Amino acid sequence: MIEPRTATVRPVPEENATGRVAEIFADIRTTKGIDFIPRFWQVLATNPTQLEVVWSSLKQLMHPESLGLESKLDPAVREMIALAVSATNGCSYCVNSHTAALRKHGADAATLGEVMAIAGLFNMTNALADGYQIEPDVFPPLDEDQS
Amino acid sequence: MIEPRTATVRPVPEENATGRVAEIFADIRTTKGIDFIPRFWQVLATNPTQLEVVWSSLKQLMHPESLGLESKLDPAVREMIALAVSATNGCSYCVNSHTAALRKHGADAATLGEVMAIAGLFNMTNALADGYQIEPDVFPPLDEDQS
Amino acid sequence: MIEPRTATVRPVPEENATGRVAEIFADIRTTKGIDFIPRFWQVLATNPTQLEVVWSSLKQLMHPESLGLESKLDPAVREMIALAVSATNGCSYCVNSHTAALRKHGADAATLGEVMAIAGLFNMTNALADGYQIEPDVFPPLDEDQS
Amino acid sequence: MIEPRTATVRPVPEENATGRVAEIFADIRTTKGIDFIPRFWQVLATNPTQLEVVWSSLKQLMHPESLGLESKLDPAVREMIALAVSATNGCSYCVNSHTAALRKHGADAATLGEVMAIAGLFNMTNALADGYQIEPDVFPPLDEDQS
Amino acid sequence: MIEPRTATVRPVPEENATGRVAEIFADIRTTKGIDFIPRFWQVLATNPTQLEVVWSSLKQLMHPESLGLESKLDPAVREMIALAVSATNGCSYCVNSHTAALRKHGADAATLGEVMAIAGLFNMTNALADGYQIEPDVFPPLDEDQS
Amino acid sequence: MIEPRTATVRPVPEENATGRVAEIFADIRTTKGIDFIPRFWQVLATNPTQLEVVWSSLKQLMHPESLGLESKLDPAVREMIALAVSATNGCSYCVNSHTAALRKHGADAATLGEVMAIAGLFNMTNALADGYQIEPDVFPPLDEDQS
Repeated sequence: MIEPRTATVRPVPEENATGRVAEIFADIRTTKGIDFIPRFWQVLATNPTQLEVVWSSLKQLMHPESLGLESKLDPAVREMIALAVSATNGCSYCVNSHTAALRKHGADAATLGEVMAIAGLFNMTNALADGYQIEPDVFPPLDEDQS
Repeated sequence: MIEPRTATVRPVPEENATGRVAEIFADIRTTKGIDFIPRFWQVLATNPTQLEVVWSSLKQLMHPESLGLESKLDPAVREMIALAVSATNGCSYCVNSHTAALRKHGADAATLGEVMAIAGLFNMTNALADGYQIEPDVFPPLDEDQS
Repeated sequence: MIEPRTATVRPVPEENATGRVAEIFADIRTTKGIDFIPRFWQVLATNPTQLEVVWSSLKQLMHPESLGLESKLDPAVREMIALAVSATNGCSYCVNSHTAALRKHGADAATLGEVMAIAGLFNMTNALADGYQIEPDVFPPLDEDQS
Repeated sequence: MIEPRTATVRPVPEENATGRVAEIFADIRTTKGIDFIPRFWQVLATNPTQLEVVWSSLKQLMHPESLGLESKLDPAVREMIALAVSATNGCSYCVNSHTAALRKHGADAATLGEVMAIAGLFNMTNALADGYQIEPDVFPPLDEDQS
Repeated sequence: MIEPRTATVRPVPEENATGRVAEIFADIRTTKGIDFIPRFWQVLATNPTQLEVVWSSLKQLMHPESLGLESKLDPAVREMIALAVSATNGCSYCVNSHTAALRKHGADAATLGEVMAIAGLFNMTNALADGYQIEPDVFPPLDEDQS
Repeated sequence: MIEPRTATVRPVPEENATGRVAEIFADIRTTKGIDFIPRFWQVLATNPTQLEVVWSSLKQLMHPESLGLESKLDPAVREMIALAVSATNGCSYCVNSHTAALRKHGADAATLGEVMAIAGLFNMTNALADGYQIEPDVFPPLDEDQS
């Protein structure tokens, strides 16, 4: 019998993880405060360097508090950015997981609708600005940061 | 002599605008509190229905306060979403204008860096989740909204 | 039991629609000449402003006749553009609905094949022109519109 | 002195073309009825197999009449599809060349505006349908072609 | 009963193929050394010109040996490029077929992981370079090819 | 006078770098064997965490030898993947830098042409497979890795 596939590779289940992979799986549980290892990380674990690179990047940028790093963004805002990017790219797994995360942060359907509508809007204006090849405006009084 | 092009069509300068186009240009100035018409709108004005559709959409979603519409998102957050989408699509005009807008809302280079790094991160994870064709996790305790 | 999901939010079924949402649902039925509300609109209805913005935009651009607006494009051509964009973005829902719409306009598999092949071709040439960073040709005799 | 670059490779100017490349350059002039070789083809000529593949594909799909092939699409419609794809991908060279081609076919700024607005619209709806992961509608009475 | 759809058109099964389509199907079997016609080619066959264009292009670029064409790239490297592009575009069919092809060439999960991680990485850096609108470096000692 | 902008932020020049940023700049010089800091890294340095995340990821995946990590891919192949992704996304900075890197690894215009043509080809087939919504083939004899 052919089992339904869940990915193009066989995910590494938590009970089979050893060494650095097991450590990262434990860190994912703790840092995210979840009680299972999402399939994404189980798949990346098929190449431990890949797991290391992606988890380390995501931990620093999405969970800076856990590392004592400063951040100017609210955790819910970070998830909104993640969702807007995922909607733009049409990534099924990612849309599902970031929508779930946004809900954990208290977003309701109306808030989700604003994020989605704005993401949709700028996909429209991006196509228009690119489709007409519009040169950027020169912002008249450039402040010091805009050299 | 061939002047440098600013778009694939000749933008409609404010002094040539009449009728509905002139009204929309005036509304753009007032609603956005700016003292010039960005080239984007001058270009869209080459087809007045297009200008109407895009401005009306953008006004409702990015300036809901001006219409008495409720919004759950901070104006700076809306611009962050706009910028993340524009970075993902690589839209030159849009990146420039949303970066400028974000600065008006007080974002400094460190904040901009967080938005950009998160947008970059999820372009990476989107490619990975899609590139491995990972099936979404089933979120164990589905709340009522997730039918 | 976990029902299969049809979206990340619970669509608004027609029998639950009230107020502005119910009006828009009725307008969708009439304008499109269909006897059900496609799931896309049921989902957008979870945020009524979003439904308003997207329906109003789509009505003006895809059903201009219903509003007495002028159009230079044949309705089938509009759907071809919609399908080419949806194929480029890989949007599953959209490919399905625009293919169905194109069939309503009388397109057969050979015509669909031409649209798809041309959309495919220019995804190839776009990657090549961008991948070599080719500067646009200066079109020697610029006509008056090309300043 | 460093000349401004026009591509990441040195284009093959027409006077240097020999053999199969020269034949294709001549065919491009004749088939397209133009009196210069656009930079795109000069760049592809740095690898003759690449030039062969792309020109052969484009000739069959965009100039079927020149080969006695049947086509259901108007030449202007083909360029509209090309432009919509190029706007979606944000390809600078391609937007410029397909806009110029569309003008040759008689399109004015209003027509161009319709094509662009529709391309923009469906970039918006694509992001929404993907961003909500909406399952395709099942079209109730499937016709024979829709197995 | 409604059969599950496998595409928006009815694929052409091998036993129904005639003329040029049948010849191309036979060539696909031989050139690729496979004993079935993948669904992709069955679908393209609904428009024989489309099938001709795409197969001819793919044969020249992915199976140059079969035509006596020179190639500098290892067949496995060609599939890695195909997979990286497909991951970037999030194309489900393509990711599945190029992953299978890469396995035939002997790639294991660790190698696949390197390809995927690198594809992911550059989707991140692309968004960053575009999102900051960074001008290309001028490479100081330009070699002769870089005019 | 308004200087031409090189990015939406002011890059951090090497002489102004201190602390962790200075260390990373030194590591970039050594690891890459180059005698200047590419603008990309100067821009990322406006947010040191961002610089850290991206450089650390890139070092592990593109310079594994420098860290004693195992790799199955040739350095030139890694750059080919980078270039194919960058062409697909149309990233100007990235196309320029990865083309330059590929040349350092000895690639000539013919090799570059193969990479580009293959990247172009699969952007075409991706649009076709997505545009027809073709279901993946089930690969009959699944090997152990393909659960």
